[in-house]
Amino acid sequence: MTELTIALDAMGGDQGPDIVVTALERALSSFPQVQFILVGDKDILQPIVDRYPVVTQSPRVTLQHASQVVAMDDKPSAVVRAKPDSSMRAALDLVNNGTAQACVSAGNTGALMAMAYLTLKTIAGVIRPALVAALPQQNGSQSLLLDLGANPTCDAETLRQFGIMGSVMAQQVYKQSHPRVALLNMGREELKGHDTVKQAAQLLKDTPGVHFIGFIEGNDLFAAEADVIVCDGFTGNIALKACEGMADLLYTNLKQSLDGHLFTKLLAKLLFKRHKKSWQWLNPDQYNGASLLGLRGVVMKSHGNASANAYFSAISHAIEEAGVDLPRQIHDRIEYALLAQVPDQRK
Amino acid sequence: MTELTIALDAMGGDQGPDIVVTALERALSSFPQVQFILVGDKDILQPIVDRYPVVTQSPRVTLQHASQVVAMDDKPSAVVRAKPDSSMRAALDLVNNGTAQACVSAGNTGALMAMAYLTLKTIAGVIRPALVAALPQQNGSQSLLLDLGANPTCDAETLRQFGIMGSVMAQQVYKQSHPRVALLNMGREELKGHDTVKQAAQLLKDTPGVHFIGFIEGNDLFAAEADVIVCDGFTGNIALKACEGMADLLYTNLKQSLDGHLFTKLLAKLLFKRHKKSWQWLNPDQYNGASLLGLRGVVMKSHGNASANAYFSAISHAIEEAGVDLPRQIHDRIEYALLAQVPDQRK
Repeated sequence: MTELTIALDAMGGDQGPDIVVTALERALSSFPQVQFILVGDKDILQPIVDRYPVVTQSPRVTLQHASQVVAMDDKPSAVVRAKPDSSMRAALDLVNNGTAQACVSAGNTGALMAMAYLTLKTIAGVIRPALVAALPQQNGSQSLLLDLGANPTCDAETLRQFGIMGSVMAQQVYKQSHPRVALLNMGREELKGHDTVKQAAQLLKDTPGVHFIGFIEGNDLFAAEADVIVCDGFTGNIALKACEGMADLLYTNLKQSLDGHLFTKLLAKLLFKRHKKSWQWLNPDQYNGASLLGLRGVVMKSHGNASANAYFSAISHAIEEAGVDLPRQIHDRIEYALLAQVPDQRK
Repeated sequence: MTELTIALDAMGGDQGPDIVVTALERALSSFPQVQFILVGDKDILQPIVDRYPVVTQSPRVTLQHASQVVAMDDKPSAVVRAKPDSSMRAALDLVNNGTAQACVSAGNTGALMAMAYLTLKTIAGVIRPALVAALPQQNGSQSLLLDLGANPTCDAETLRQFGIMGSVMAQQVYKQSHPRVALLNMGREELKGHDTVKQAAQLLKDTPGVHFIGFIEGNDLFAAEADVIVCDGFTGNIALKACEGMADLLYTNLKQSLDGHLFTKLLAKLLFKRHKKSWQWLNPDQYNGASLLGLRGVVMKSHGNASANAYFSAISHAIEEAGVDLPRQIHDRIEYALLAQVPDQRK
């Protein structure tokens, strides 16, 4: 890995800068070659950083002042103009001007998407960026799901590009040599679903370098049948959050069904401790961060509620993506796909 | 409850007529006022029925022959013409000609939707029928989710009608005096989502008699925040099946995390037995059947894999819906809503 610099928006998220600095402390020892720029209001940030000698004394950490903070309930459309000196914007600018190769933020998702889009812009040829996260699978592997909400509607060509971008990410970051790409649909048969998903299937079938395997259904999301699962942002957002709701419900039911019996309560405690891991990705953002794919730089969204460990996870993924220069890889594959569409002029 | 007759498609489903007859036996004792017509191939059906003396001897059971069976993999579009004498079609015809007030089938969902639509037609004013099911909620109540897949795309007016129909069902069948109606969206803020869902929100706000509470998100599906949750069939189908996939994954993880330890294995067995109920609605169709709402008759879809108890559940719901004449109630409310839209000519 060549020398990398990662910009951390220290002010985003519900938890405040504390968890960001804790995560940074861990990252400093896990990634000895990586530089970090901690962006935020120095008046707030400095006293926190001072409590972490490893961070304060590291020559690999720079503090950069930004006077404004994007609040979790700020309107994305307004914040872009209203907060030009926010820590989120400054972190994105560092990526845009080449000082950093990736940025991580636990802030307001809508604002981050809007600001990243405006600051970094899309890779040449890319219609729309997509929010992507890894889902745990029944067999222990991981599959990518995109889009998770950057685009409420998508046309067929946009879905095709999501298939290409997801495929590149699966190859470069998850080291899958031949990732299987599927479209999420309400049935597996060719006739199922609406026109857009059917057209996207046709386009993906004809896309060189993409191993398209057809439609999969909601209950296949965790079945390890596809490595890349493509859908519009409305569907992806709702499907993912529905899973979160379901997991919560099961957890509540499980707990309730054990209530009132001291013996089984004790057993339950023992069991819950053992399978705590199973519930840790209830919130998929928290699982390992969600990337904004298709921009001219790596942008990693950590969940607003992320713990220091979860935030560390997001930092790790940002480093992985920056390490393989994912935006460049996507650029090349999109260019290749677009060129393949140009008809031979000699015909 | 006035005297009702329920037509049962005995041939549909993966399990064959056996579970239908077992469920009927239970229904005969639970609903002493209700008549049943068992529709299917007599050569297959009669020997099975003969094993159930309660059924054979009941004056409230009629067998009706139908020579054809709709297979689970039959194409819905083809089956309508290719199998005019199917048990599914005959059961729907019994509702259409007024002999029965409801029918229940565990057969091919697509074929049932297509055939029901053609045979029974929609209630005057209803744009499209919707598939609806009850979801268990955190607080032990139930909420209705529609559409679950009858309509891959829906315009705003169709979504509004789903809100009205769901509201009527919540009032009439689930005895909720003032059901809260919500639209499923990728965020709660008014600006979130695509144009259709935003337009539908505006329409529902202005619909008399509907208590519209705004948008809810995927993770609210089981949070008892709304009594009726409206979405297009693509989203509903994928969200519901995603929950099924999530539950499967959690179950597998839970089991795996206990493997190899004899002591915890035994404990786990004990616990699983206790909270078996929690997992029983993994498959929401199985939970209690899904209704096809908006047709001129009650059509209840039982899951293809339903056990006799689950099928009995579907029968019970069909009886409840027929008992309150749900199609008539929907007719009146849709008419009322349509009339409210007609501008006053004197203005």
